[in-house]
Formats: sequence, C-alpha cells, structure tokens
Amino acid sequence: MPRIYLYDTTLRDGTQRAGISLSLEDKIQIAHLLDEFGLDYIEGGWPASNPKDTAFFQAARSLPWQSRIAAFGSTRRKEFSATEDPSLNGIVEAGVPVATIFGKASPFQVRDILGIDLDDNLKMVADSVRYLRDHDIEVVFDAEHFFDGARLDREYAVAVCEAAAEAGAQWVVLCDTNGGSLPDWIRELTALVGRRISAPLGIHAHDDAGLAVANSLAAVDAGATMVQGTINGYGERCGNANLCTIWPNLVFKMGLEAGQKPAMVQELTRLSRTVAEIANLAPDAGAPYVGENAFTHKAGVHVGAVRKHPEAYEHVPPESVGQKRRVLVSELAGKSNLLYHYEELRPGSAELAQVVEEVKRLEAQGYQFEDAESSMALLVQRALGQVPEYYQVERFHVSVTRDQAQPVTEATVRLRVGTRSFLEVGAGDGPVHALDNALRKALTGIYPEVEDLKLTDYKVRVLDGRAATASTVRVLVRSEFRGQPISTVGVSGNILEASWQALLDAVDYSLWNSGITPMEA
Amino acid sequence: MPRIYLYDTTLRDGTQRAGISLSLEDKIQIAHLLDEFGLDYIEGGWPASNPKDTAFFQAARSLPWQSRIAAFGSTRRKEFSATEDPSLNGIVEAGVPVATIFGKASPFQVRDILGIDLDDNLKMVADSVRYLRDHDIEVVFDAEHFFDGARLDREYAVAVCEAAAEAGAQWVVLCDTNGGSLPDWIRELTALVGRRISAPLGIHAHDDAGLAVANSLAAVDAGATMVQGTINGYGERCGNANLCTIWPNLVFKMGLEAGQKPAMVQELTRLSRTVAEIANLAPDAGAPYVGENAFTHKAGVHVGAVRKHPEAYEHVPPESVGQKRRVLVSELAGKSNLLYHYEELRPGSAELAQVVEEVKRLEAQGYQFEDAESSMALLVQRALGQVPEYYQVERFHVSVTRDQAQPVTEATVRLRVGTRSFLEVGAGDGPVHALDNALRKALTGIYPEVEDLKLTDYKVRVLDGRAATASTVRVLVRSEFRGQPISTVGVSGNILEASWQALLDAVDYSLWNSGITPMEA
Repeated sequence: MPRIYLYDTTLRDGTQRAGISLSLEDKIQIAHLLDEFGLDYIEGGWPASNPKDTAFFQAARSLPWQSRIAAFGSTRRKEFSATEDPSLNGIVEAGVPVATIFGKASPFQVRDILGIDLDDNLKMVADSVRYLRDHDIEVVFDAEHFFDGARLDREYAVAVCEAAAEAGAQWVVLCDTNGGSLPDWIRELTALVGRRISAPLGIHAHDDAGLAVANSLAAVDAGATMVQGTINGYGERCGNANLCTIWPNLVFKMGLEAGQKPAMVQELTRLSRTVAEIANLAPDAGAPYVGENAFTHKAGVHVGAVRKHPEAYEHVPPESVGQKRRVLVSELAGKSNLLYHYEELRPGSAELAQVVEEVKRLEAQGYQFEDAESSMALLVQRALGQVPEYYQVERFHVSVTRDQAQPVTEATVRLRVGTRSFLEVGAGDGPVHALDNALRKALTGIYPEVEDLKLTDYKVRVLDGRAATASTVRVLVRSEFRGQPISTVGVSGNILEASWQALLDAVDYSLWNSGITPMEA
Repeated sequence: MPRIYLYDTTLRDGTQRAGISLSLEDKIQIAHLLDEFGLDYIEGGWPASNPKDTAFFQAARSLPWQSRIAAFGSTRRKEFSATEDPSLNGIVEAGVPVATIFGKASPFQVRDILGIDLDDNLKMVADSVRYLRDHDIEVVFDAEHFFDGARLDREYAVAVCEAAAEAGAQWVVLCDTNGGSLPDWIRELTALVGRRISAPLGIHAHDDAGLAVANSLAAVDAGATMVQGTINGYGERCGNANLCTIWPNLVFKMGLEAGQKPAMVQELTRLSRTVAEIANLAPDAGAPYVGENAFTHKAGVHVGAVRKHPEAYEHVPPESVGQKRRVLVSELAGKSNLLYHYEELRPGSAELAQVVEEVKRLEAQGYQFEDAESSMALLVQRALGQVPEYYQVERFHVSVTRDQAQPVTEATVRLRVGTRSFLEVGAGDGPVHALDNALRKALTGIYPEVEDLKLTDYKVRVLDGRAATASTVRVLVRSEFRGQPISTVGVSGNILEASWQALLDAVDYSLWNSGITPMEA
C-alpha cells in the first residue's frame, strides 16, 4: 500500500485566513495536537517575517516531536547571495530539521512581480536549495504558481522544478497558489513533472474554485506522495486544501495509508473541533466528515431508512472519523423524528400532538432545538406531566451603571417555594453573569445540588440583525451536571430574558434528570 | 458553445440542511430571486409531504415565471397504481410544468429499504414517468443512489435509467445521493449512461467527501447538460453541490454557457448573500467566488504583489462575480496594509508606529477591525489629531426588571459639553435597545444631525464561550449615515459596555466624516 505524507501548514498558511490570529501558546498547542495525530510535517511559521514565528521555533526546539517541524521562507532575494540572505538565514537559525522554501514557477510572476529575468530565478532556486542542504536541512521546495505558470510556459514551470531537484531538494511541491485550476490540469501536469524529475512530488492546493480537495486527490492519483493542507481548510482567501477531508478520502476512498499514525483518523473530529476552538472560529457545521451536520439526518424519508440501515444515507460509518449520528427534531420530519427520540411519546397520543404544536410555535419564534436537546427533553417531559414545579420565579432585576471607568453590574433574583421567599443579589462582569450569580445563590438555598451545575459554554445569536439593537436574540447555554452534558435555549427581544430562560432550563433539567424531589412548600 | 441547464433545489433539498426553516414568504422571495437570475429550473418543494410546499405551488401558480417551476416527489408506491398514487397526484394537482421524481437505482436500496424486487421497481419507475407524461408534464427523473448502486450492480443501475428514458422522461439525472463518490467514478458512469440512452443527462451531487463541485464538473465533462444544486450548497448533511461555485466554474473555467441569463453570473455574490439572509444563516466567509474572504488579501507579500498586479493572487477578477477586493489590516501584514488603506499615514512616522501599537493592543483584547472599518478609520484619524471631542460621557445606567410577564427595560444617559449637561431616559425591547434610544435622545439635543444615523445591523460574538456567562463579547454594529455605510466594533466582558463603544464610534464617525464641528462649550 503506497504511503502518503501529510504536511500541515495550519500554523503558517492557515493563519492567513481573515479572522484568525494565533498567540504563541495557541500555536504550540496546535502543534502538539498535530504531533499527537501523526501528521508527518508541521510547518510552524516564517521565521524571517514575524517575531511570533521566531518565538515559536525557539520554544519548539526544546520540545520532543514525532512530526518533523518545518520553517517556511522564500528563495534568496536577488540582491543577496544565499549565504547573506536574511530569509534563508532565519530558517537556519530556527534550528529546524526541515525548510520549506517557495520559488516562483511562473514566467509572469518572475518577470512582472519579482522583476528579474527567468534564468536568474532558476539560479536563485538552485542556490537557495543548495545552501540549506549544505546545512543538513531537509528541503521541501514549493513551486509557487506552478499550475498557472505552466499554462503560460510549460517548459519553464518544469525547469524551475528541475532546478530545485537537481540542487538536492528532497521534495518538489506543485502549488496551485491562486486556487483556480481544474483537476484534469493538475493531474496532467503532475504526471508530466513525475516523468521529468526523480524527487518525490507534493501538491499544495487552494480552494478558490471549490476544488482544493479534488485537485489534491488528482495529484495523488498522478503520483504525488505529499499533500500540503490545513486543518479545517483555513487559509488565505477561500482557504487551503482541507486535510480533515483529504485524509479520510485517501484512507476510505482511495485505500491509501496517510500520516504516521493511520489509526488516528478515527479521532479526526476531535482534531478539527479542537483546532477551531483554539483558533476561536465557529466550526463549519457542513464540513465533510467532521462537521456537526455530516451525519445528521433531517428529511423524514431519510430518517426512516437510516433506522433500518444507516448505510442507506451515510457514505462511511460516523465512528470511522470519531463522529456520531444525529437525527433532528424539526418541522420537516415532525412526528417520526420525535418518536425516534422519545420512546415515551406514544404514536397518535394527545401528548405527541401537543409537543408537535408547541415545537412549531416555538420554532416560529426563533427557538431551535437541534442544539438544545435538554430544553427539548424538558418540553416533552412537561407535556407528559413528568416535571414537577421546583420553585416559582417572582422577580429578577439587573442594573448596570457606568460612571467613569468600568461599569458596575448587579442583579437580584427572588424565588419562592410555597410561602418561603429566597432573595439574593449577585455581581458580575456583565449583566448575564450577574444574573447567573444571583440565580445560583438563590437556588443553592433551596437545592444545594445546584452547586454541581457548571456552565461550560454560552452563545448568542442575533436572529434579525436588521432590526439592529431591537433584534431578537437566541441564547444557547451548555452546562454539565455531575458529568452529564446539558444544552438549553432561550429566545427573546431582551438578551437577559433569553439568557434567563436558558439558565432556568439547565437548572430544571438537572433537577429532573437526577430525580431530585421538589422542596416541600 | 454547449449550453448547460441550471436546476436549483434550494427550496427542497436545501431546506434539509440542519438549521434552515423557510416560511412560505421566504420561499416565494427566493424563487423570485432565482427567476431573476435566470436559473432554468426551480424545484419548489414536495407537495405531498408538507402543507407549506402545497401552499407554495398554489401561490406560484398565479405568478409569472421565466424559470420552469418543478414539483418533487417519489415514484409511485408499491401498493398503489400510478393513477391512485398520492405523491404523483400531489404533483399533478400542484399544476406545475415540471415534475422531478426520484426512483431508486441501487439494488440494495430497492430490496432492503423499499423491500420490493428489482423488476417491480423498474415497473414503478416506468409507470410513474408515463403517468406524468400523460398529463403533459415535463419529467425529470432523479436516479437516486445511482453511483452507489452501480458499484453493486452496474447493469441494474443503468436499467433503471433506461426504464425512465423509455417511458418518456425528458431528463435522467444521475444522483450521488450519499455524496461519497470520487470524480473518476462519476465521469466513467456518466459516459456509460450517455452511450446507453438518448435522453439528456443531469448530475445531482452531495458534498460528503468535499467533492460535490468536482463531481458535477466531471459529469458535465462526460456529457451531462443539467446540473442540480443549491445556492450556497445548502442541503442534507454536508449539503448539495453549490451552484454559486459551479456556475462560475462552468463559465470561467470550462467556457460553457449556463442558465438563461449568462450575464447574471456577474451579480452572483448578491444572489448568495440575499439567500443567506433570507435563510437567516451567516454567509460562509470562505466560500469560493462569493465568500467575504474570496478576494481578501492578508499576507504581506500578497498585498504587495496585488498592488502591482491583482491577477498575481486572484484566479478571476472580483468584478466578474460581483465581488470587491479587500485588503486586511492585521498583525500579519502590519504597516504595508495600513499604508495601503490610509494615505495620510506617512511611512516611518510616529503616528504610524502609534497606530500599529494600538491595533496590536486592541486585537489582543479581542477587537477585530476587518469588519469594523469605521472604528479603524477613527483610530487612525485620532492618532493624527483629526477628530475633535464632540461630547463627554458622564454616565449611563441600564435597568431590567422582570416581575411576572415581560421584562421592563430602561436606560439613562448623561452627556456633557463644557458646563452643559444632557440627561435623557429611553425604553426598549432589551437593554441595548434602551441604551441606544437614550443615547440618541441625549445626542439629538446637541447634534440634531444624529437623527440621520440609522442602525442597520447588530451582531454579538461570544469570544471565549468556555468562560460561560462571564465571557468577553465583541459587538459589531453596522449603520448608515446619509447614504454612507458605517461599521464599528466594541469589546468588553459586559455586553452593554461593548455595545456602547460600537454605538459611540458610529456617532463619532458620522460627525467627523461629515465635517460637523463640535458644539461650543
């Protein structure tokens, strides 16, 4: 079975995506993950361009890695010899085992962007590779703009690759830098270079035409054995080739081995989600294999079939990439989905009809239960009369005062059980935090168990931004109660009211699900 | 030049995406857009499955369309003749010119999911097509699971297509229903069917392996002349083939004519954004061609090259799909990007250094200026001493009280100019709305021009959701002042403070940008 090398550039090309900014700690954390997952190469940054990248290599040097750490840079500039070139010396000083340098493989780029002649560019490529090889560094040569260059002058584009290979580059990577090539072109040119040089080939694709995955696979099909890409496809413009799609495609669709630890593909979803979390970007719910929706069934006919045979609407088993099957409760599927989830709801019962009506009414207001399974469960159990009244809410009040510097925030909450009243006050960073604190204090007097309820995530979505500050907001709260995950929702034109609903649902679900009995009045 | 037919199923398959729920009005609005853009076919829904879809066809019947409106359904069920079948009659009653019916083209699906034998399935396909053709309806036959079916039994999969074509179907559409096929397989099988039947072929691809676009193009390359897909790739699981990527690929990469109005591809970005807005989904910033980042340059080397020759890092001109080039201000590019944007900042000046420092400091706190160009402009102009102090903020106070039903929200704002104080109170749906109202009342007393400042969008992003209700939030506000768009940002652990910053920036930018002079103290 041929072996494909996975080369990750999340820490360099990935950070070129609009909206990403990684701290040094973020970069180290991501590198450790990539190492754990057995990626063959981890490109850490461009030492000459950026002090944060220099710091990364300094920190990386004292850590043990199973992956090979690569530093990125350009071929020498025309005004320097290789020995004097700051970019090349930046790489040497980074003390890495691998250097990835890019040189231009397009006559337009060489003449009109660099402003030098074609032969000089070949010399710059050769000199730069040789200099790094003389320092015993493994050289990956990225032939930038190769596929666009070949459209202008096929022989010159290949000559650039030959120059790198002859100078000793261990890898020649063909780049579709602008991301606009079609798979057939990628395949044809990769095969051509494969016939002309003996160094192993790699592919570096961008997604500007939505073809980065297909182009990477086409290159592999034509003989490339390294795939450069990023986790979640992060990268300049529309992004780089997405390794979270390519890796399972190589394994499950093409029967190839990829990476140092083939079994880790089974935990791919964790890799994708953790990197998104560190990068502070919302994960792409529709992403192949790892997206939240990738094994989510909504259509009624699909749900029915999947109950019989999951493979009816799944191209691979969700477990093969660390995923779970989800079946949504939604108006499209209606009763059959509710019955799938809640065995307690009998077909044809009045309670089922009531739940269907209630879900429709709430969805029309902006509620969404797909991400709030605990609120949904409460709704069903309440319809079945299974949830007791644990307390009554009499009042909450929140005030934010900003005189000079930081605002001062306080909230009071008054709950009641029978004739007993529980009034508490809380402060916080913001109004929701203060309200949450006051609620917990009031509740703990009634149900000490609430101390075990931890909030783990809080999200706000403005539903109709065009209504500006008067918009309706949906709040999603994730919590944990004694190891059990809880997800709840609230919707209102007032963010405090929406948060309040989601917080109370989390409390009620915890109490009900743990079988706690209501305090006697 | 061959002509490709674009078939949109946003209103049916698109709504199977988790998180989409379209009202009847939403569906009508999207259909009008698709019609305006010259899509050849618009699939409106599945009349037998869903009362909302029935209502759609009722409403559509009395409207004029240039596109052909299609109703979706399955082949007849085994227990009914075609004449008696509710799904087929639902289509007939919808009064549409086109019916798209799906029949299973995989022996596994026929035997194990439908539970019938293979020959009966062929009869069901033929009967159903013939029944609709007898009603003078154009029939598009979707061969569901065709590509997976052909892997199990190539002859049977083709026989299903032949049965539909012989019964009179005008189109036979090969479906990669589970989205797991590779382009080579799509190409080979499409070519095979093309040799066996004379009806024109279509392709219906899903994106579970990240290959829906490539698979659609491969089918076109092998002779298919209809592409089924959705706007923004919405659809079950990972989505359908994205027409916003495929259309420009057909035109710009393959030199084909597609759709009834070829010139409308130049406004594609508007189609994508408007549909996202109606569907109430955040647009995918990284989407090819139409995403906010598709022509956004961040890396320093790219920015330099793009200034000389945009085509250096753009595969097509942004205008060709109704886009604009964006160059980001970010730590990666630093000074060169600032200089690109603000000619007033001289290279090497103390002000430039100060702005760079300030941006770094604020970005570390969670500010992002990529979407808040007016806040960024204020920052630069303040460093240059160009923005006068229009007023001083003495205090704001917000209170939310919830006794029984709806919460009551009030805000007070006190501003000062010299010795004069302006105190006002405002109410609102939520605390931000009340604060906004009080601020406007107080300001209008000082600068009546503020009445022309309209807020158009309000977004909240929780930056560190894991800190739960104590999270830092970033607020982005879009406004309009006398026709000029304004985008501002605020960041704080307190949502009111963050909103306040963004609101004040919008006010200050409007006053400064219109050359309004400060009120005399």
